[in-house]
Amino acid sequence: MAGAGQTPFGRSRGSIGSLADEAAETALERANVGDVDAVVIGSMSPMGTIGEAHISSKIMDHLGLTPRPAIRVEAGPATGAAALHVAFWAVSSGQHETVLVLAAEKLSHLEPREASGILSRIATPEERALGLTMPGMTALMARASMARHGATDEDLADLAVKAHRNARSNPNAHRRKALSREDVLADHMVAEPLRRYNCAPLADGAGARVLTSKDRGPVRISGIGAATDRLRYADRRVMDGFPANSAAASKALRMAKIKTGDIHLLETHDAFSNLEWSNPEDLGLLGSGQGLDAMKRGETDLGGRLPINPSGGLTSKGHPVGATGLGQAAEVFWQLAGEAKGHQVDAAVGMAHSIGGFGASVFVTVLEMA
Amino acid sequence: MAGAGQTPFGRSRGSIGSLADEAAETALERANVGDVDAVVIGSMSPMGTIGEAHISSKIMDHLGLTPRPAIRVEAGPATGAAALHVAFWAVSSGQHETVLVLAAEKLSHLEPREASGILSRIATPEERALGLTMPGMTALMARASMARHGATDEDLADLAVKAHRNARSNPNAHRRKALSREDVLADHMVAEPLRRYNCAPLADGAGARVLTSKDRGPVRISGIGAATDRLRYADRRVMDGFPANSAAASKALRMAKIKTGDIHLLETHDAFSNLEWSNPEDLGLLGSGQGLDAMKRGETDLGGRLPINPSGGLTSKGHPVGATGLGQAAEVFWQLAGEAKGHQVDAAVGMAHSIGGFGASVFVTVLEMA
Repeated sequence: MAGAGQTPFGRSRGSIGSLADEAAETALERANVGDVDAVVIGSMSPMGTIGEAHISSKIMDHLGLTPRPAIRVEAGPATGAAALHVAFWAVSSGQHETVLVLAAEKLSHLEPREASGILSRIATPEERALGLTMPGMTALMARASMARHGATDEDLADLAVKAHRNARSNPNAHRRKALSREDVLADHMVAEPLRRYNCAPLADGAGARVLTSKDRGPVRISGIGAATDRLRYADRRVMDGFPANSAAASKALRMAKIKTGDIHLLETHDAFSNLEWSNPEDLGLLGSGQGLDAMKRGETDLGGRLPINPSGGLTSKGHPVGATGLGQAAEVFWQLAGEAKGHQVDAAVGMAHSIGGFGASVFVTVLEMA
Repeated sequence: MAGAGQTPFGRSRGSIGSLADEAAETALERANVGDVDAVVIGSMSPMGTIGEAHISSKIMDHLGLTPRPAIRVEAGPATGAAALHVAFWAVSSGQHETVLVLAAEKLSHLEPREASGILSRIATPEERALGLTMPGMTALMARASMARHGATDEDLADLAVKAHRNARSNPNAHRRKALSREDVLADHMVAEPLRRYNCAPLADGAGARVLTSKDRGPVRISGIGAATDRLRYADRRVMDGFPANSAAASKALRMAKIKTGDIHLLETHDAFSNLEWSNPEDLGLLGSGQGLDAMKRGETDLGGRLPINPSGGLTSKGHPVGATGLGQAAEVFWQLAGEAKGHQVDAAVGMAHSIGGFGASVFVTVLEMA
């Protein structure tokens, strides 16, 4: 993996094409590989958000990258990670030597109600009919976790405090405000027990990566793994975690030929704060029920034994839905390459973890220093 | 490639999930490979057509194929072919041994105006503002070809007659009516000189394939190639053909290590009749300006030296947009495997050719008897 790029996440005046352009340019400059042979593009719902079909052709035209082949990949909010996996296939199949993978989403021009209307389409029609939105389902899950582990509202607030503290030193983060536990507890409720600061802000943004089999960059992808799950919460066998997390992680670790203990850094999909407890447990990086204690003991802080979301994570770095997964992968790239200015951690092996829908599809990528 | 499946194209009462199910079941039964390791799903615009996001997770749930990994791929009307290319990468990368690739689209529940509104989003905003729809642009292109080659309205009608004649013996085809030249000339005009029988009918439908590196099936993919082009017709250097066709075909042929003369069968993307002239010329299978003469001499008929669209092609087999590319690939599979009941041709090497947008992205697949 030769280069990574990302726009700042947040509200942008730029079009989806100009966001893609910015991320691609940074990644290509860093990669310094000359030309690319093909492009893989992630975007969750350009038809819903900007009324455009066949978005890959529009982005290629905007980037001036025609006549190279282009394909769009989508997997709900895990779209960026899915695009990375497809680009990895394209290179490791031997068909393409160097592939640019980029993901972009544009949401801030929509009214909040329009944006959440589009996102609600990720859930099943049955759940939508019940009013079960993504925050609503995750709130039910948070309650189940909290009851099982004796967690309090203060603990949930502390997760938001930690995330926002990390984001303060990340220039690409959306919410860079210093927060106290009291600030979070005074914040308005979105879906009890989740307050606004516990929920990822929707953002505009783009991420990019250059994968090459030619001259190896500072970081390599050593394992990828993905899994799906039954869609409806009511059809699941586990209430306070996502089984697809475990399945995807064990495949990626097996491919990388490493154990969970070898992972020094995790960028995990915390669209809601409580997922920062449950995801690392599902992924096998923390023991069952240890997510909360590890956070309390500072083990998941920037200087801890397993830094989680040094970028600030989705809750404070921001969540440009389809672009989020490539932003996570870019963060791990920078951390392993020693280029995470201001929020650098000490890690040689990292994991990026992305979720599409309510745990319905999960993509895990293991990255190592080359 | 171990198996292929396809639903009949046309108006269906089934949901997108049940269409996918039907195609997948046929392909899996024919393939007889036991289990699949991953699924690649093509669908052009489920958000536009049925208001659903993250459609891959919904189709996986419907098929009962969770927890296997799933990814959605999209490339406008070439979506099915793009999904096939990604599945080919997934297998040839070594990550997955057996992959099910399927593509499905559901359009017939929409009012014609709604459906064409969604499809118009494939064009650029500038062209939409001018009223340049896909039939409109292709009509301009048809006029340019006809002027250059001295073709008449009767010639254009004869292409529709040939396509519908082939479709009559294909049980999966949408339009299976016997047509005379007079019937076509009496048909109403869509965009001069294209009459209704010159335009592919929008359809519901699904196609599926099973790719495996395990026990080889009767047919193998020997080459894939793709290319893009500037989006706007006004930005193109060629008016009566698609340069991306040539670029994609030469890559696929180079990978397959064969020459254009080795191709015995072509399934080409004739969303409009005149593309049956120009595509084979772009692809290098017929000399420049030979497309019309080859058709007149019967060379492209079922018994000719280069049968083109024995299935009936998009104009009569039907066009379930995102599923079309896998339908084309399924047809070539059946032809090479000797399973094309009623419209079998004699071929050992075939090409499937799919276009996304107005020549903006093209995917070519070369298939050979194993």
